[in-house]
Amino acid sequence: MAHSVIDVIRAKRDGGRLDDEQIDWVVDAYTRGEVADEQMSALAMAILLRGMDRAEIARWTAAMIGSGERLDLAGVPRPTVDKHSTGGVGDKITLPLTPLVAACGAAVPQLSGRGLGHTGGTLDKLESIPGWRARLSAAEIRAQLTEVGAVVCAATDGLAPADRKLYALRDVTGTVESIPLIASSIMSKKIAEGAQSLVLDVKCGSGAFMKDQDQARALAAELVSIGDAHGVRTSALLTGMSVPLGVAVGNALEVAESAEVLQGGGPADVVELTLALAREMLAGAGLSDVDPAEVLASGRAFDTWRAMISAQGGDPDARLPRAAHVETFTAPASGVLTGLDAYAVGLAAWRLGAGRARKEDDVQHAAGIRCLAKPGDPVTEGAPLLELHTDTPEKLPGAREALADAVTVGTAHTPAPLVLDTIRP
Amino acid sequence: MAHSVIDVIRAKRDGGRLDDEQIDWVVDAYTRGEVADEQMSALAMAILLRGMDRAEIARWTAAMIGSGERLDLAGVPRPTVDKHSTGGVGDKITLPLTPLVAACGAAVPQLSGRGLGHTGGTLDKLESIPGWRARLSAAEIRAQLTEVGAVVCAATDGLAPADRKLYALRDVTGTVESIPLIASSIMSKKIAEGAQSLVLDVKCGSGAFMKDQDQARALAAELVSIGDAHGVRTSALLTGMSVPLGVAVGNALEVAESAEVLQGGGPADVVELTLALAREMLAGAGLSDVDPAEVLASGRAFDTWRAMISAQGGDPDARLPRAAHVETFTAPASGVLTGLDAYAVGLAAWRLGAGRARKEDDVQHAAGIRCLAKPGDPVTEGAPLLELHTDTPEKLPGAREALADAVTVGTAHTPAPLVLDTIRP
Repeated sequence: MAHSVIDVIRAKRDGGRLDDEQIDWVVDAYTRGEVADEQMSALAMAILLRGMDRAEIARWTAAMIGSGERLDLAGVPRPTVDKHSTGGVGDKITLPLTPLVAACGAAVPQLSGRGLGHTGGTLDKLESIPGWRARLSAAEIRAQLTEVGAVVCAATDGLAPADRKLYALRDVTGTVESIPLIASSIMSKKIAEGAQSLVLDVKCGSGAFMKDQDQARALAAELVSIGDAHGVRTSALLTGMSVPLGVAVGNALEVAESAEVLQGGGPADVVELTLALAREMLAGAGLSDVDPAEVLASGRAFDTWRAMISAQGGDPDARLPRAAHVETFTAPASGVLTGLDAYAVGLAAWRLGAGRARKEDDVQHAAGIRCLAKPGDPVTEGAPLLELHTDTPEKLPGAREALADAVTVGTAHTPAPLVLDTIRP
Repeated sequence: MAHSVIDVIRAKRDGGRLDDEQIDWVVDAYTRGEVADEQMSALAMAILLRGMDRAEIARWTAAMIGSGERLDLAGVPRPTVDKHSTGGVGDKITLPLTPLVAACGAAVPQLSGRGLGHTGGTLDKLESIPGWRARLSAAEIRAQLTEVGAVVCAATDGLAPADRKLYALRDVTGTVESIPLIASSIMSKKIAEGAQSLVLDVKCGSGAFMKDQDQARALAAELVSIGDAHGVRTSALLTGMSVPLGVAVGNALEVAESAEVLQGGGPADVVELTLALAREMLAGAGLSDVDPAEVLASGRAFDTWRAMISAQGGDPDARLPRAAHVETFTAPASGVLTGLDAYAVGLAAWRLGAGRARKEDDVQHAAGIRCLAKPGDPVTEGAPLLELHTDTPEKLPGAREALADAVTVGTAHTPAPLVLDTIRP
């Protein structure tokens, strides 16, 4: 049956639902270039303002998966389980989590992206390790999953090309903030990666994409529903992102902190979230009898980390890059640190060079921020609170400006839980 | 001040209003190509779904006028008055009206377009006159307005280029049906044409763009408000478009009917609407003491018509093209004709070759439909009701299909008024 893109746009614009045939056609025609960018952006805006129901979202996701190939992990002799975070400041959890869950007996294919905006990208972080390479072929991914159990690499070009094209379009047309479009984008990529089960870390708070807990909960419910509709065992943790995760924000700084966690140290919140996600992933993989805390303490997760880095050409013992300039940002008052705004810290780290403004920009591997205190810690007026790392000192004033209202000091701090809820089908 | 197009899109998407600076910037940046088509189409969809208030619409219109030049009619030694119809089936009123109002003492610059879809374009109609040319320079327009008082020609390229670009974009992105965008599009072109006063014929009914009277009234109110905000004396007639205007639908057929009206004959509804619009235009031009019915009866309007056609290279005495094939469509029952659906007749005429599917198509000048009866007339089952004219007889079945439900026959007909209301500032 022939379709007219204008009829599809009008149907959604006027508040109707798109049927399966319309969705399959428009996603395919857009991928092939028959539907133009200006038509898809009008449709994306109509979807943003009119919404899609669960059946539409599931079909839209299926159409985006169907626009490319699905990674075939059938030959991997371990249960496969994947994780996705909606992104947060200092969120390096993929780095300790992937080798930890692999050391527990699962295979973890972590196909990741680069950062754009105030949250860093996992590939940018690992590229601060000399020699490490992000691009693997599908055969290399399967071999590494079989031998090491853990892979963190770039998504191959053949996975969900419709999503890649649509995501780039949404980015420049003010149509990012739509739960149906966000959910189908995440899930089309993750389902195309071929894992049998999936755990989502849906963040909320100032440093997250979703500022509001209700919105984050709604997104988590959509994500779990799509996974379920596609036969992928899916659950989601709802986690707080009002303060940076851990102490380090920035590429090499976060790699160093991840290595500390894998060696039994590291900040308590990073360890807590790594173990919570590991437990959920192991449950999804049918390995709930394995205790990830024990595996972490044994050093086996760190061994897997070293093997994973080496397998991709990286030297796990190499010295990480250090910034040419390190300055301190001091506490504005004495008392108890009650707030350290995640968005402001992320923005400041981005301005120091840790992130990129445009896709074609490079990142500074050594740039970023280390937090010398976290909420609940005592602070003294004028004493160092943050370390600002950069290779380009002209960026320091902009970072300081971003931090102007980031810090609150009071008399007592009530800690908020890190894991707010678990959403299962 | 630098603007981000994404911020402008988001502001409207989230239900806010755009300020003057944002509107001026985004219209200018789009005209220059700095804002891309896919960004403007997302904004157009957001405007369609979120609306614009009167101040936003007036500013948007001003920005589109400002994207090009405004025709300078200051040297024309008569009051200038223009007319615009939102388009209907058989709507040839511009043809008798322009020379009539000129013969009454005003100067009428009718910059017109070509047809796309089921309503014909004024230029397509006049191009059925051998030799007549649509393109005039601004100097030629001024000279002809001074000497003849009447010009019907193509809009010059320099008028409201932002509107031309945006209109083409809306046409392919499902963003046509927005009162703010329709109103600003019409008025930017009309105000750029430089007339001192303007009368709008806003149609409603099956054959019109606005099917619904409330919507048509809302559009009329916006149009009048924009004209008022720009210092152009503007009023609007709200007129019915449920049956075709007059007897003829199609280019040469409508020219012939217009010439009949100018010679004192023609269908009653065409004469009625021509005179109603002429009175409103004369009032706007400060010539309300002139009676257009008297001028029409005197033959002076027909003289002006002949002068207007000749001035643009046309031969007013040339034989108009006739279709190679003429078939009849018969009445389905005997009784009183109670309905003759304007949209169906327009679609059938279009399928016979009177209109074009794409901008680059040609029209058949002789193709179209003549209505042998109008609602209220008695009809006999099996007797001819419509004449179908075409040069390409393979198009006849499609036209007959369009007409399948166009005709209703009953026992009594209550005539609806043609002019439903007049809207003034």
